[in-house]
Amino acid sequence: MAGNTFGKKFRLTTFGESHGLAIGGVVDGCPSGVSLDFEAIQYELDRRRPGQSAIVTQRKEADKVEFLSGVFEGKTTGAPIGFVVQNTNQKSGDYEHLKDVYRPSHADYTYDKKYGFRDYRGGGRSSARETISRVVGGAIAKQLMPEVKINAFVSSVGEIFIDKPYQALDFSLTETNDVRCPDLATAQKMEEYIRQIRKEGDTIGGTITCVIQNVPAGLGDPVFDKLHAELGKAMLSINAVKGFEYGSGFCGAKMRGSEHNDLFNPDGSTKSNLSGGIQGGISNGMDIYFRVAFKPVATIMQMQQTIDKNGNLLEMQGKGRHDPCVVPRAVPIVEAMAALVLADFLV
Amino acid sequence: MAGNTFGKKFRLTTFGESHGLAIGGVVDGCPSGVSLDFEAIQYELDRRRPGQSAIVTQRKEADKVEFLSGVFEGKTTGAPIGFVVQNTNQKSGDYEHLKDVYRPSHADYTYDKKYGFRDYRGGGRSSARETISRVVGGAIAKQLMPEVKINAFVSSVGEIFIDKPYQALDFSLTETNDVRCPDLATAQKMEEYIRQIRKEGDTIGGTITCVIQNVPAGLGDPVFDKLHAELGKAMLSINAVKGFEYGSGFCGAKMRGSEHNDLFNPDGSTKSNLSGGIQGGISNGMDIYFRVAFKPVATIMQMQQTIDKNGNLLEMQGKGRHDPCVVPRAVPIVEAMAALVLADFLV
Amino acid sequence: MAGNTFGKKFRLTTFGESHGLAIGGVVDGCPSGVSLDFEAIQYELDRRRPGQSAIVTQRKEADKVEFLSGVFEGKTTGAPIGFVVQNTNQKSGDYEHLKDVYRPSHADYTYDKKYGFRDYRGGGRSSARETISRVVGGAIAKQLMPEVKINAFVSSVGEIFIDKPYQALDFSLTETNDVRCPDLATAQKMEEYIRQIRKEGDTIGGTITCVIQNVPAGLGDPVFDKLHAELGKAMLSINAVKGFEYGSGFCGAKMRGSEHNDLFNPDGSTKSNLSGGIQGGISNGMDIYFRVAFKPVATIMQMQQTIDKNGNLLEMQGKGRHDPCVVPRAVPIVEAMAALVLADFLV
Amino acid sequence: MAGNTFGKKFRLTTFGESHGLAIGGVVDGCPSGVSLDFEAIQYELDRRRPGQSAIVTQRKEADKVEFLSGVFEGKTTGAPIGFVVQNTNQKSGDYEHLKDVYRPSHADYTYDKKYGFRDYRGGGRSSARETISRVVGGAIAKQLMPEVKINAFVSSVGEIFIDKPYQALDFSLTETNDVRCPDLATAQKMEEYIRQIRKEGDTIGGTITCVIQNVPAGLGDPVFDKLHAELGKAMLSINAVKGFEYGSGFCGAKMRGSEHNDLFNPDGSTKSNLSGGIQGGISNGMDIYFRVAFKPVATIMQMQQTIDKNGNLLEMQGKGRHDPCVVPRAVPIVEAMAALVLADFLV
Repeated sequence: MAGNTFGKKFRLTTFGESHGLAIGGVVDGCPSGVSLDFEAIQYELDRRRPGQSAIVTQRKEADKVEFLSGVFEGKTTGAPIGFVVQNTNQKSGDYEHLKDVYRPSHADYTYDKKYGFRDYRGGGRSSARETISRVVGGAIAKQLMPEVKINAFVSSVGEIFIDKPYQALDFSLTETNDVRCPDLATAQKMEEYIRQIRKEGDTIGGTITCVIQNVPAGLGDPVFDKLHAELGKAMLSINAVKGFEYGSGFCGAKMRGSEHNDLFNPDGSTKSNLSGGIQGGISNGMDIYFRVAFKPVATIMQMQQTIDKNGNLLEMQGKGRHDPCVVPRAVPIVEAMAALVLADFLV
Repeated sequence: MAGNTFGKKFRLTTFGESHGLAIGGVVDGCPSGVSLDFEAIQYELDRRRPGQSAIVTQRKEADKVEFLSGVFEGKTTGAPIGFVVQNTNQKSGDYEHLKDVYRPSHADYTYDKKYGFRDYRGGGRSSARETISRVVGGAIAKQLMPEVKINAFVSSVGEIFIDKPYQALDFSLTETNDVRCPDLATAQKMEEYIRQIRKEGDTIGGTITCVIQNVPAGLGDPVFDKLHAELGKAMLSINAVKGFEYGSGFCGAKMRGSEHNDLFNPDGSTKSNLSGGIQGGISNGMDIYFRVAFKPVATIMQMQQTIDKNGNLLEMQGKGRHDPCVVPRAVPIVEAMAALVLADFLV
Repeated sequence: MAGNTFGKKFRLTTFGESHGLAIGGVVDGCPSGVSLDFEAIQYELDRRRPGQSAIVTQRKEADKVEFLSGVFEGKTTGAPIGFVVQNTNQKSGDYEHLKDVYRPSHADYTYDKKYGFRDYRGGGRSSARETISRVVGGAIAKQLMPEVKINAFVSSVGEIFIDKPYQALDFSLTETNDVRCPDLATAQKMEEYIRQIRKEGDTIGGTITCVIQNVPAGLGDPVFDKLHAELGKAMLSINAVKGFEYGSGFCGAKMRGSEHNDLFNPDGSTKSNLSGGIQGGISNGMDIYFRVAFKPVATIMQMQQTIDKNGNLLEMQGKGRHDPCVVPRAVPIVEAMAALVLADFLV
Repeated sequence: MAGNTFGKKFRLTTFGESHGLAIGGVVDGCPSGVSLDFEAIQYELDRRRPGQSAIVTQRKEADKVEFLSGVFEGKTTGAPIGFVVQNTNQKSGDYEHLKDVYRPSHADYTYDKKYGFRDYRGGGRSSARETISRVVGGAIAKQLMPEVKINAFVSSVGEIFIDKPYQALDFSLTETNDVRCPDLATAQKMEEYIRQIRKEGDTIGGTITCVIQNVPAGLGDPVFDKLHAELGKAMLSINAVKGFEYGSGFCGAKMRGSEHNDLFNPDGSTKSNLSGGIQGGISNGMDIYFRVAFKPVATIMQMQQTIDKNGNLLEMQGKGRHDPCVVPRAVPIVEAMAALVLADFLV
């Protein structure tokens, strides 16, 4: 089955693998007459780009997006928007040694089982380079709804977490540090910890929190296409994500109804917001917020046992330049997927 | 937009609200020639039915399913399977007092905002009676893949939880107690706690864990329709669900790569299974397991402040027979949604 | 694959076979707050019903539609509308002799090849009784766009055809005769011809023309979901349809550009309308009109050679009460499918 | 709404307009492990290319396809296949005079009404250059089912038509003449006629017949996604198409059941094939054949009256190099769309 299209009315279809000629996609269902800010789109790609700081992978990739269609005189025409990002820094030779090896907790084994065939160069389609297309699509989506504010940030790395509610944070600080954590004291601890992890040749997981403000009431289509169900699917489709919770989330499962219910103000807003801005699968106009769990990157600079295609045990160690922690670069991806979901309901 | 169809190849389309004439649906894409066990389908409905035990709502509803099409001489024909469950015990008069009131943390306010109009009888379409159709669809899905074993159970109620890995549990005990917890000592504590909560006129949240065994490797369609992304959407679409995690889940976000990676055995199975049976969005043949968080039921037997349509503050208290804790009855619903997801990939 | 859902935003999912318990469906994506005229829906079903006149099948079927959900206090709620029509006059015994026989030019052979299994009672799912659900869905669709006028009528039976442009016809005469032909002189000839055909134990094909007025400009989604492509698919999905043409149709293929081009009036309307109200796949505000070809009914009251499942040649003759010509009863079906297409673009 | 994706399991998503940087698309759902013959794909594009013969437009366009992803070591990987064809010979300046003009029977007016905005360069997205992507997608589809033989050919130009059944034709002659008509005497008449039409500054319509052989029984999904309904939609989505008929088509509407029924041979094949290889919406293993009507090209080299955006009447004449008759170049497009439909059911 085809699985590379996201959305119903506002749709993103993507293609491209780690070491192919290019990554790209098609945005379909975009309204006409929208003046696209191409620098803003490139800015989002730059936030995702490898090599942007000392705590992420040091691969150098330009990741410049080129638009091929759907825009005329700076405005969308209503026709599909095709785009490509060339893969410029891909050395397939780096991966020859992986040809017959299944790396632990990567997608090598499952792709081989499913497709009977594997593009072993850097993960192929299972590589996180695929998310370039998501970021481009999401950046366009953001521009369709300028009133909506989507702010994602790193809320934990390993055991280090922000111990404040998001309302106490200044989102404008997120981009001021390499970790993308708006609580600067915590950010510093996270950064030091990531450096330490990298020195040990290891990797570490983390969480991203996303807060969406100024969403009008009424988005979401019960019963299966509830707003949070679509957000959940969107987040879970990002590489390395293991969990999603919104509003009270897993904490809500420990609470009583008398403490969990969000009482109304006369204007329809609520005093508390454990609902996370969504009730019955439909936005209620309050802030939408959710949290996404990322596992540690599977490629580590330590010797591990693994197997080859024929079931022979062997030892291997990660090579090259990999992220010790994926969450700083995943922040724009989370925002992009959130924007795609909202635009699909709003368009 | 339409939002009442689930699945692509094996599809369930549902209809029905709390106090309409009937709940029902259409299963499309079912292979032909399958001998359906109708008693097994009714059994799943009975597991979901109100009034089945002392710790759930005492409403009496027969919930007998009738099949209208798609089956001939006991076998599926490949034509769509229509089914209905009559609503027999619905007294609309019970809800007249709610006509203009928005109950806290229900879908009353958002349905009114979205549709400009509200079926105020028992939650209308937002009622959990809607899940009857899911259970019927899921029961059919289960019969398409008899080799796959789907076992959901209550893993926590409030702060009480099973403190063992699922491998230490005997799933055959799940149905031996009213809470549907296979750890009997924990089950007893949960049951007592729920009784206590009900006495206090309150409600309590909980979690359900689901373990799926004997799933072949190869299910899931990268990049957007990853197996766990579809499972996540399926679970999040169930009423009252606030979170979903699979494999290591949120705990995985605190771990290092060196401890999180699942090392291979020579036969391709893995020594640990923090991946939760899914790598790169595709099943790897190991057990799939995930956890779902349910918030406490919003209807409580305590006086709460709320508002009416015109923004007037008023006080109200829940009436009637409601569940003090939703998770025991949600177990078959979680299983049904899991079955629908798997059947859609397997068919 | 599932193939029983029509539409994207306004969707009809249907179920039911000739001799099952009921025919029915689910309309999803219907806007809320629409006051449904249930008599108007039943009226459309009555137009389709067997036994309504001397020139159609004399089977007596009540075909009363019952709505199960989605409507509250006479208005749509935005929830899916489930409906059923009981099968009351079905005698399965009538078809026992067909159990192992493939009737010529029916779907018996292909259903058996596809599904490995056949509901031999009256055609099962391939029976035209399936169109009951289309008529109900279309009747709802019509009510969503009261300004749009959809008029279908019989334009030919065998070699007899209306030799006037549709603009010369009075559509209010369509329902005044059993053939549903608004040109009364032609209608009389058609009716006599159909009576003659029936006497001979034979059947005859025909065409239906449909004219849609007051459609706003702008409907249709290039490039694949062009308005006429969706109309064409809708019509071709009706039993017995062999062809579809719109605007100049097959005649247009014989014309020169200089005679085919529709020149503009200053207000954007066109002097001629060989485009059929659609240019580049998008409605232009002019009348949309198209023609649909129906083959003769395959069941004839004459002895024919055929085969059984095992390839044995045998002779058989149609039994029971069948339509000598399908087009009079297909008129409301054509209108219903047109309404479903338009509503999907308009909603 | 998005309308630029075709298919469900085997899906083609396209982008690109006449004078953008490139035309391209994404093929998703392609099985893995297929050795693609890239020259065969380019060959199909060459059949569609302008400037290939004396009777088509003399524009020179290279139309070389480049594949960006989804193929590794010459084989498909199961990942989406992205491809682009650069637009090399596009002079936007040629179209400046059309900026505010609506050309008769083009999509200028409707695009403006729908999108409020128009890419006036050469038709923008409504240009037939869009079909490049269809041809690439279809060429891949053909390679997935090498046993299926798809042969389209020009069966009429204006009033000139092949007066033989397709069984009397030698399809290998189709590519031996510029018209793509396998009946050489007719081909010569057509070619002369087209030259004459061009001299007069006019254009002419025509029809294409397509014959598909070796299709297994069982393709097609009743009731809405019948095989011929999908073929019909596919053909009607091609620019300039006004009608579609399969099997007996519109002639069948004049016939009696006793002459129309296809009687069986003992092996399940039929003596006649007025059904056109499809019964009840499902292929029966006989040849599938259908006919597609194309209107004359709207751009003529004669002075015509038209209007501008403000409703001012003006006179204009076509400029540049246009096809006097579209059907010779449409033959590979018809085949491509047929291949896409079949592959979607076969994959």
